[in-house]
Amino acid sequence: MTKVEVPLGERAYDVVIDPGILCKAAELYTSVIPGKKALLVSDQTVYHLYGAGVSAALAAAGIELAVYTFPPGEASKSLYTYEQILNAAAAFQLTNSDAFLALGGGVTGDLTGFAAATYHRGIRFVQMPTTLLAMVDSSVGGKTGVNLAAGKNLAGAFWQPRLVLCDPLLLRTLPPEQYADGLAECLKYGVLWDEVLFAQLERGALFQVTERQIARCVELKRDVVLRDERDKGQRQLLNLGHTIGHAIEQASGFAIGHGAAVGLGMLMIAGLFCPEISGRIRRALRENGLPTEWDGSREDIARALLQDKKRAGDAIDLVIPLRIGACELRRMPIGAVKNLWEEQL
Amino acid sequence: MTKVEVPLGERAYDVVIDPGILCKAAELYTSVIPGKKALLVSDQTVYHLYGAGVSAALAAAGIELAVYTFPPGEASKSLYTYEQILNAAAAFQLTNSDAFLALGGGVTGDLTGFAAATYHRGIRFVQMPTTLLAMVDSSVGGKTGVNLAAGKNLAGAFWQPRLVLCDPLLLRTLPPEQYADGLAECLKYGVLWDEVLFAQLERGALFQVTERQIARCVELKRDVVLRDERDKGQRQLLNLGHTIGHAIEQASGFAIGHGAAVGLGMLMIAGLFCPEISGRIRRALRENGLPTEWDGSREDIARALLQDKKRAGDAIDLVIPLRIGACELRRMPIGAVKNLWEEQL
Repeated sequence: MTKVEVPLGERAYDVVIDPGILCKAAELYTSVIPGKKALLVSDQTVYHLYGAGVSAALAAAGIELAVYTFPPGEASKSLYTYEQILNAAAAFQLTNSDAFLALGGGVTGDLTGFAAATYHRGIRFVQMPTTLLAMVDSSVGGKTGVNLAAGKNLAGAFWQPRLVLCDPLLLRTLPPEQYADGLAECLKYGVLWDEVLFAQLERGALFQVTERQIARCVELKRDVVLRDERDKGQRQLLNLGHTIGHAIEQASGFAIGHGAAVGLGMLMIAGLFCPEISGRIRRALRENGLPTEWDGSREDIARALLQDKKRAGDAIDLVIPLRIGACELRRMPIGAVKNLWEEQL
Repeated sequence: MTKVEVPLGERAYDVVIDPGILCKAAELYTSVIPGKKALLVSDQTVYHLYGAGVSAALAAAGIELAVYTFPPGEASKSLYTYEQILNAAAAFQLTNSDAFLALGGGVTGDLTGFAAATYHRGIRFVQMPTTLLAMVDSSVGGKTGVNLAAGKNLAGAFWQPRLVLCDPLLLRTLPPEQYADGLAECLKYGVLWDEVLFAQLERGALFQVTERQIARCVELKRDVVLRDERDKGQRQLLNLGHTIGHAIEQASGFAIGHGAAVGLGMLMIAGLFCPEISGRIRRALRENGLPTEWDGSREDIARALLQDKKRAGDAIDLVIPLRIGACELRRMPIGAVKNLWEEQL
C-alpha cells in the first residue's frame, strides 16, 4: 500500500494505491464521508466489471447506494449526461453530507466531479479510477468538466475529491490501447520533471507499470497542484502536449484516445522547439504502443490552437521542452506560433 | 454614491450604489477586468431598456462586447440557456482575462454567474442588477445556479463577482409587483437583524426605497457572507422564509415571484414558531403590495420541505424568528416539523 497525501488545508485528501483496495473501500470511505448515501456513477462497461464488488464492500459498511450508468466513451462527457446524473442524485435525495462516487476512467471522473462540484453548489466526492490514465492524471488535482459543441472541457470547475482509491489489479483488464494511453501521461511526467522515470518507461512498459511508478506520477502531479491549484502558472506545465493533443482528439472525433493524442502533441511540440529530444520521445511512444504519426488535417490543429483555453488575449501559453526532465512555460504571441507552425508544414 | 466593500481576500470586490452608474460603468469595469472582451448577458426586456446605454459606455472605453439575450422569466434559468451562453462565449473566443457581464434581475445574475463560474473552469464576472431584489440579494454573495426538473438551483456554484453596480434609477421602470418582490427581501433583512430597517419599510415603501436603505441591505448580506461564505452555518439565516418560499414558487409554476413567495414563507414560519410577530409581518407584507394568502396545496409544500437542500440526513435546518430583528437556526428532526405542520393545517 502506498499513500500519497495531498495537503490542501481543510480540503486535504489522500490518494491510496493498493492492489485489491476497491473491495476494502468501506473503511477509508466512511473516514471521510459523514453521510450514509452515495450515488455511484460509472460507464456500463466498467460497472459490469467492478460495480458489484464495490457495491458489496460499501453496503457491508451500511452505505446506501444508488447507481447511475451511461454508455462508455467521450461522447457521454456531455451536459446531457451531467443533467441526468444530477436528476438521479435529486431523485435519490442525496444530501450535503452524502457523496458522489466516480468508478471509471477520466470521462467518469470528470463528469462525476463536475456533478459533485455543482450539485447543491458542491458536495463531497470520491474517485475510484479504473484506468492508468485516470490514476496518474485526471483523478488527482480537482479538474472537472464536460465537453460542449464548441470545445473540450468548456464547462467545468475546480473541485477536489475527498479520497482517491487506485487499485492496480484493475489495470489487468484494461485493453492495451487504453493502457498505452495512460503510459503517454506517465512519459509526460518524465519529460516534465523526472528523467529516471522516463528511462524506466521508455523501453516499453505495457502492463508493467509498478505501484511505485504510479505513486511517483501521482506525487509529481500532486506537487504541481500544490504549487498552483487554480492553474494560473506552474500547473500549466501539465499541458505539455495538450494544446495540440486536444485539437487532435477533437479532429479525430475522439477516435484517438487522450493519452495517444497527448503523446502526439508532445512529439510535435518537441519537433517545433526542442528537436534534439524528438527522437527519444518518438521511440518511447513507439515502444509503448502509442502512435507517432497522425494523418489528419494540420489546418484543424492550427485553428484549435487559436481558440485554445490557454489563450490570454493575443498570446498563448505553451509548454516547451528544454530536455528530458525539464520544460518551461512560455507566453508567445499568436502570430509567432502561427509562423513557426507554417514553417514546419 | 455609496460603496459597500466585500473584503474576501484576493476575491474582494465592491458593491457600488449610485444613480446613473450604469452609463458611467467603464472606469470601474476596467479597474477590475484586464481583458478587452465581455459577453453581456441579459433578458430581452431588460436588454431593450438598458442594453444600448451600457454597451455605449463600455464601447467608449474600448471594450469589445458580444451580447446574448434570452426570453425573460424563471423558465430561462435552465441548463439549456446556460449551454447557449457558454457556446456564445466560445464563439466570441472569450478568454481567461475577459469577463461575463450580467445585466438584469436574479435569473440573469444566477445564470450568468454559473456560466462565469464554469467557463474555462471559472472566469471573472460583473453584476449589473436591474431589480430591487437582485440589488439587495442575489447579486451579492456569489451564489449562482440554474434550475433542474428536480428542483430550483440544483446545479450551481459559489462564485463571487468582481464588481456589482447598482443603479437606483433603473428601479423607476420596474413593474410594481417586481418592486414589491424586492421589498419582501428588504423586510427579511429587517426581521433577521435590523428592527429599525423593518420599521422604516413596514408602512409601505413601494418606489420609495432609498440609496441608503439599499446599501444597508447589501451591508447586512455582506456581513453574513463574510461570516460564512459557503453557507454552512450563519449564512443559512438568509433562508428565512425560503424553504417554504421555494416550495410555493415551484408549486405555483413560478407565477408567484421569489420575493412574494419568501414573504409568504416568512409569514408561515412565524405562524408556526413565533406567532406574536405574525401580525406585524402580515401587515408589512400587505402595506408593501405583497400577498398574505396562498390558495395552493399545502401538501406540495410538505413534500418540498422533505427534499429541501437544507436537509442533512434525517434533520432539516430551519430559520426560526425570535422577534423582529433576531432569528436563529434550528436543526429539527423531519418528523417534528411534519407534526407541527400537520397541527397547523
